[in-house]
Amino acid sequence: MKRVSVLEKARRAREAALVLAGVSSAAKNRALRAAASEIRKRRADILAANSADVRDAEKLVAKGAMTKALLKRLALNYGKIEEMARGIEAVAALPDPVGATLDALELDAGLNLYRIACPIGVIGAIFESRPDVVPQVASLCVKSGNAVILKGGSEAARSNLALAGAISAALDAAPGMPPNAVQLIETRAEVRSILELDDYVDLLVPRGGKDFIRRVMDNTNIPVIGHADGVCHVYVDERADIETALKVCFDAKVQYPAVCNAMETLLVHEKIAARFLPPMVARLRDAGVQLRACPASRKIVRGLKPATEKDWSAEYLDLVLAVRVVASLEAAVEHINRYGSRHTDAIVTSNPAAARRFLDRVDSACVFVNASTRFSDGYRFGKGAEIGISTGKTHARGPVGMEGLLIYKYVLIGKGQTVAEYTGARARRFTHRPLKKNFPPPGGLIHTKKSRRRAENPHRGGKIT
Amino acid sequence: MKRVSVLEKARRAREAALVLAGVSSAAKNRALRAAASEIRKRRADILAANSADVRDAEKLVAKGAMTKALLKRLALNYGKIEEMARGIEAVAALPDPVGATLDALELDAGLNLYRIACPIGVIGAIFESRPDVVPQVASLCVKSGNAVILKGGSEAARSNLALAGAISAALDAAPGMPPNAVQLIETRAEVRSILELDDYVDLLVPRGGKDFIRRVMDNTNIPVIGHADGVCHVYVDERADIETALKVCFDAKVQYPAVCNAMETLLVHEKIAARFLPPMVARLRDAGVQLRACPASRKIVRGLKPATEKDWSAEYLDLVLAVRVVASLEAAVEHINRYGSRHTDAIVTSNPAAARRFLDRVDSACVFVNASTRFSDGYRFGKGAEIGISTGKTHARGPVGMEGLLIYKYVLIGKGQTVAEYTGARARRFTHRPLKKNFPPPGGLIHTKKSRRRAENPHRGGKIT
Repeated sequence: MKRVSVLEKARRAREAALVLAGVSSAAKNRALRAAASEIRKRRADILAANSADVRDAEKLVAKGAMTKALLKRLALNYGKIEEMARGIEAVAALPDPVGATLDALELDAGLNLYRIACPIGVIGAIFESRPDVVPQVASLCVKSGNAVILKGGSEAARSNLALAGAISAALDAAPGMPPNAVQLIETRAEVRSILELDDYVDLLVPRGGKDFIRRVMDNTNIPVIGHADGVCHVYVDERADIETALKVCFDAKVQYPAVCNAMETLLVHEKIAARFLPPMVARLRDAGVQLRACPASRKIVRGLKPATEKDWSAEYLDLVLAVRVVASLEAAVEHINRYGSRHTDAIVTSNPAAARRFLDRVDSACVFVNASTRFSDGYRFGKGAEIGISTGKTHARGPVGMEGLLIYKYVLIGKGQTVAEYTGARARRFTHRPLKKNFPPPGGLIHTKKSRRRAENPHRGGKIT
Repeated sequence: MKRVSVLEKARRAREAALVLAGVSSAAKNRALRAAASEIRKRRADILAANSADVRDAEKLVAKGAMTKALLKRLALNYGKIEEMARGIEAVAALPDPVGATLDALELDAGLNLYRIACPIGVIGAIFESRPDVVPQVASLCVKSGNAVILKGGSEAARSNLALAGAISAALDAAPGMPPNAVQLIETRAEVRSILELDDYVDLLVPRGGKDFIRRVMDNTNIPVIGHADGVCHVYVDERADIETALKVCFDAKVQYPAVCNAMETLLVHEKIAARFLPPMVARLRDAGVQLRACPASRKIVRGLKPATEKDWSAEYLDLVLAVRVVASLEAAVEHINRYGSRHTDAIVTSNPAAARRFLDRVDSACVFVNASTRFSDGYRFGKGAEIGISTGKTHARGPVGMEGLLIYKYVLIGKGQTVAEYTGARARRFTHRPLKKNFPPPGGLIHTKKSRRRAENPHRGGKIT
């Protein structure tokens, strides 16, 4: 196979995207199911490729150049491959978001404006060594009508090539599909090169550790869906139910501490601290959690390690927790907006006014009342699939599903109108009247005189039922 | 008045934004109406400041260092100031988009997720010498709950200071409003400095010429709403109605050629070219339009100046038009996707299938059937106000109204649920059942046992009506 440059792949992706935007749901779903079959068919080859990657990675782990956690995420087996195939089939079964009529407005009689959901275009998916990202992201992009360029880590090079090869082969052979909807950039090319392709790549979806994501965000003009940090808080209000607070905080810290939606700092109102902190600290200590505490909490519970300023913005991703007593809800909100990462923050309270103030004032993607921060997740939020969690303030925020891969276009259907008619002394006036959100409209796309009359008076000549 | 650094202004804007997000519609509208009054009250001072700017600008024009068009946009008078005040009042009268419930989903009984519209945060508005941008952008930002930092051109320094001074004074004095919702960066600070404040500024809204916008886009990591180019096309299909085509094309080119939504290239199907081009060229020539034509069009109409490759991507913003005969609708689409700027492109046709293919395949923010490209505009699209026109592919596309200044947060209301309960062998299952889009819910934000029972069985103890 001839090597194709990254730029040439980007050009091909753009061409594919222009066709893919108009491919029917049926054709996309058929192609995705074919991709799932192809992965099952090639599973021996995929496992062989993966074994080679794993062997090399084990050498890196032995040398201390790779963590065991990364190695674990790299290794595939029959079960994981079957899961991948089922994951693609699940995406095929999701509703097709492309073509939905988001808004419809009559500008004037016979001049109708529609806002229609459409794919963004070319997605760049860059990720560290997790081959399961390949089928997941590829299927979501194809389903939403986007072309995708995948760039994985060098540790998973052979696994990714085998998986992407199976998927591309099936998609390219499927009827109605353009070639190159899914392409892999091989590992010799630098990540940097894809970050510079802002003329071709419309959106980047990085997956990996926080340093990796930050590197991506800091080195590109292309919009990015992602989050570098997950510094999440639970604030226990003065009017919290103690049992609820213990339960929520324990879950937020202990249930799975290595992830971005785990609690990193616990804030406690000073009026409840003496009752709440002793049992909370006992439970956390039992679970092996190390605490970093402010002076006020250290007065309430003996033997806590003091927190430093750095602890307030630390993302431990581990069984470590910063604890701070605050004088008021306002102080808690201020702490969160100052040290947090705008990801997910929760209040535990029985006071509706306090809940409302917290929800209004905390500037985070997800704000929770009496629930664990760990719920912040695309699957739990009912999205069917997750592209990533965004801490950005534009386009898509919080857990992002397929909607993050969509934008819209404005479609205006006229009968030869000119702006000159709406200008000057005898100008026609716009009606700006809402229309039914059904595009294409039953009257069709061409407003002839006949169809126009019909549209203006739908009951003409017919029975009113 | 003490000079405040740009960084300090950005910090203050972020603080203001956190408060402004929770200010009631009534308070925001009252503050905006006060700003309109203040502008009327200070009109003599504003005009005096503007005269000083105009005098200096006239010297620049005489030296050839400034265009007459820029000078014209700089000059204010009583009528224009009254228009500004009315513009602010019109924004106050618009519905408040903040707090709308965009989605509502039950994750499980007593665990309800809401997606709520909220302000983005801090908007950076940078513009060339057009003082009317100050009241326009300031009022839209405040109405949508965003703080704004304004940075105008040095030619309008005194006018901008007088206008922004009136607005800030009124807003800062209004009850319930935070200070510093609207701040002006004075002209000595570089535009560059605001482009670098990505820790504080969430979105840039540049206004000005295309070189200005491109400079902004190329030098910042902050998301930008804008368009550098408006290379718009009209494609006259083989089955176009000739009269409609003549009317639409004439309007798209001649009605106001200096703007981004004017047609820059006319594409004509070869089967209609011999009938359409001669009358079209005659009308355009009568209006003073200079043509740059492809070889095929030059065979049909004598004496046309030949087009070069550069003409296909030129944005003339003047009475100049590139003309190209194409062999098919597909060739027209390919030309548009290759040379266009993803802004606005129109087809003239009587064939619904051709219209549909054009709408599906042209990758532009606005795609029109039998209507002039000049309709591509926030006011005509019924938005009440326009932030800008975006040719980007994420967040907001095409003419952008106040919706471009909004994002959302996820609000989850629980009763102490933990993710642990939804994990493992005896896991609870998510229901993912749609809810009514009314937040805050009638049952309130606190799911006590009592309110939970009520929410689960709303008719308990009551009459079913």
